[in-house]
Amino acid sequence: MKLSEIANIIGAKFDGVDIEIESMNTLKDAGASELSFVANSKYVKDVSLSNAGAIIVDAKTMEFVPEACVALVVENPYWEMAEVSKYFAPPIEDKTLPSSKIGANTTVSPKAEIANGAIVGENCMIMAHVYIGANSVIGDNTIIYPNVTVYRDCIVGNNCVLHAGAVVGSDGFGFATNKLGEHKKIYQNGNVVLEDDVDVGANTTLDRAVFGSTLIKKGVRIDNLVQVGHNCEIGEYSVLVSQSGFAGSTKMGRNTVFGAQSGASGHIEIAPFNTFAARTGVTKSVKETGLTFAGFPFMDHKSWLKLQGRLARLLK
Amino acid sequence: MKLSEIANIIGAKFDGVDIEIESMNTLKDAGASELSFVANSKYVKDVSLSNAGAIIVDAKTMEFVPEACVALVVENPYWEMAEVSKYFAPPIEDKTLPSSKIGANTTVSPKAEIANGAIVGENCMIMAHVYIGANSVIGDNTIIYPNVTVYRDCIVGNNCVLHAGAVVGSDGFGFATNKLGEHKKIYQNGNVVLEDDVDVGANTTLDRAVFGSTLIKKGVRIDNLVQVGHNCEIGEYSVLVSQSGFAGSTKMGRNTVFGAQSGASGHIEIAPFNTFAARTGVTKSVKETGLTFAGFPFMDHKSWLKLQGRLARLLK
Amino acid sequence: MKLSEIANIIGAKFDGVDIEIESMNTLKDAGASELSFVANSKYVKDVSLSNAGAIIVDAKTMEFVPEACVALVVENPYWEMAEVSKYFAPPIEDKTLPSSKIGANTTVSPKAEIANGAIVGENCMIMAHVYIGANSVIGDNTIIYPNVTVYRDCIVGNNCVLHAGAVVGSDGFGFATNKLGEHKKIYQNGNVVLEDDVDVGANTTLDRAVFGSTLIKKGVRIDNLVQVGHNCEIGEYSVLVSQSGFAGSTKMGRNTVFGAQSGASGHIEIAPFNTFAARTGVTKSVKETGLTFAGFPFMDHKSWLKLQGRLARLLK
Repeated sequence: MKLSEIANIIGAKFDGVDIEIESMNTLKDAGASELSFVANSKYVKDVSLSNAGAIIVDAKTMEFVPEACVALVVENPYWEMAEVSKYFAPPIEDKTLPSSKIGANTTVSPKAEIANGAIVGENCMIMAHVYIGANSVIGDNTIIYPNVTVYRDCIVGNNCVLHAGAVVGSDGFGFATNKLGEHKKIYQNGNVVLEDDVDVGANTTLDRAVFGSTLIKKGVRIDNLVQVGHNCEIGEYSVLVSQSGFAGSTKMGRNTVFGAQSGASGHIEIAPFNTFAARTGVTKSVKETGLTFAGFPFMDHKSWLKLQGRLARLLK
Repeated sequence: MKLSEIANIIGAKFDGVDIEIESMNTLKDAGASELSFVANSKYVKDVSLSNAGAIIVDAKTMEFVPEACVALVVENPYWEMAEVSKYFAPPIEDKTLPSSKIGANTTVSPKAEIANGAIVGENCMIMAHVYIGANSVIGDNTIIYPNVTVYRDCIVGNNCVLHAGAVVGSDGFGFATNKLGEHKKIYQNGNVVLEDDVDVGANTTLDRAVFGSTLIKKGVRIDNLVQVGHNCEIGEYSVLVSQSGFAGSTKMGRNTVFGAQSGASGHIEIAPFNTFAARTGVTKSVKETGLTFAGFPFMDHKSWLKLQGRLARLLK
Repeated sequence: MKLSEIANIIGAKFDGVDIEIESMNTLKDAGASELSFVANSKYVKDVSLSNAGAIIVDAKTMEFVPEACVALVVENPYWEMAEVSKYFAPPIEDKTLPSSKIGANTTVSPKAEIANGAIVGENCMIMAHVYIGANSVIGDNTIIYPNVTVYRDCIVGNNCVLHAGAVVGSDGFGFATNKLGEHKKIYQNGNVVLEDDVDVGANTTLDRAVFGSTLIKKGVRIDNLVQVGHNCEIGEYSVLVSQSGFAGSTKMGRNTVFGAQSGASGHIEIAPFNTFAARTGVTKSVKETGLTFAGFPFMDHKSWLKLQGRLARLLK
């Protein structure tokens, strides 16, 4: 899409070189043919370092945009970014893609649907009422139980198990809101990647990334009814117990354990080898490793036990 | 159904005019051809003002029934109401209804099922393994992802998105219990109405009303794994984040925000423009507007932060 | 499978009688043709009383194994048990089983899939996109709404209702972990049994047992998005409200009520006729009966209210 067209859509002045914009991305990850945006003053420092071809900014932030990059100046960059995002959304299905490819010794139920462009590996079992979207790739030896949905462009590794009703690649919960309180969808043009040996529980939902990938690394075990938000990264061999939930862009290191009904806020980083007891609510990054935490607000588990003792005393 | 038949079913004496009862409804909403009931002394005051054709009551409450209305006197009105409710339940599917109608430019997967009597608008996408029940109506430009179930009689507006595995119109959690602890189903003969521009997340469940409608108003954004109970009303542009849950008959005004894993009890009213932080448990009505709340029991967010400070001191 | 083969797989010395092992089971329930294991010192006392044909043990526990029973000595019994479990897993589907049998007056959607070996009773309704696995048995008068998955070997009683997206029989969340933090699946070779008159809510998940059955007794009412872990036993007429969750092997007596977003840890026993308010987290067994509890950690409801009063005072 021509940059001039984008400028026109969002009502920004534009008088630079009219480059072709291929996709949208974050300030950090965008390249010369990509469009980025800055909507939060917290990220202003990333603007001057960005390699994006163009950035949607407001008038105050305009001055930080590097010379090699076009500044598209608007009043509400987040709202305009949402507006533009839909132009980069691929069609949900695409009949012009080649027929799906199914590997040797893989059984696909006649009641499953595998969209054009999808590739399924060898020795897989794709059961009834499964949907695998366009351009998705499923590895070898993977079992997909009934009523699972894998959205387009997602990747599922080898030796994975997706239990019934699991959803891989639903849209992340992203929208801009204007002063009237109305919402505009931010198209979620990223995907979900499951590495090898990942188990996903029944009716668990793994949201696709807005840009890039939501990443579930090797050997992760996810129980039933778990929610993983867009752009999360779940470290190798981590364990997410039933009904836990993770807001967007949170990253955790390997062998992290989240107990039942626990959760974490978005945009935090959790060092490896920590355990969070059932119901823990993690609200900030954890740099220590090898510890056990509990509570909401969360604290180390021993403090939490001590606190419960003190609360019991209050009752006397 | 003749009133005399109903009286016979529940073992109530009956000697009034044998009117035709068309449906059941609440004391407030029932009209002259409707049957209502009173099972909770809290609602006795509504009896004398009711326009219902007949009311199931116990002996103590009988005296409050207006003259124009027939009192059906039983020992356990709630149990008998449950018994009668099944006679007003329509069949789950009905082959005598006309074939479904599909609007122009709408694509329906051959692996979707659209029941007789359903109507789908223009420019929609109805994907594989979707079920749309009898007499349901889907507006224009609406996307229904795979494995979504819309039960009979539900209404989905224009420009809506229903993500994979979402359920619209499952039965509300309603039953009567007798002294032996046995339960009897209260048939949920209402529906769910989604107005325009509503997004529903993956594996979210929206229960149908017992009478009338569960109502999701214009522009609402619902994340994954959210539960909305029967007869709730979610105000325009409200935002329900992942794993939040709402018990029956709760109403919230526009631009209400419920964070992840939060919830509200039933039968409460929440004024518009309030925000409830993640994990907040709202147990009574909120009349103020424009505030932020947290905690369980819930309180204003600043008090909650202060309380956490005091609790931290207890640890010293 | 010959015991010598099992010994070979797990690298245990073996010089007893080479019996045929038919299945795996707990120390308490295993019979002479079954293999058991002990991986937790808490269960060592059960070893000497076990009637198992063979037990996987470590060197320290070897001495407690009864004479009639073969001890298979390994370094990590839990890991080796996981390794062996897969050899006892039946195939997910089995075309050599007889065609499914459907009772009189039962309607099965052409878009449902009923696997070989399954039996459906009379007067049932099996709707679109339902999957019923091998050897499962569905009773009479049962309604299975769209997109429900019943895994193989499960039993659903008479007069049950399974709402859309419910999952019956997904794998329990079981795995062994080695010193490198890698996980190995413990095959869940048990099933789920729903007795008569059970209602299961939309998108609720009921995990199959590792051995034996996850049991949902007569008249239980389960709301939407509830998680029941492997080997739980839910007593007659119990009520599990939306988004509640139950870890493995927990048993509750009849007419237990768990409120919304509540939960219980694994391996506990709850006496009948108790009520747990919304958000209660039950962490140990309850022997009293007829009480109401709240909070996490949980306490009797009056104490919880008192505690909230004391906390409110802290704010002054």
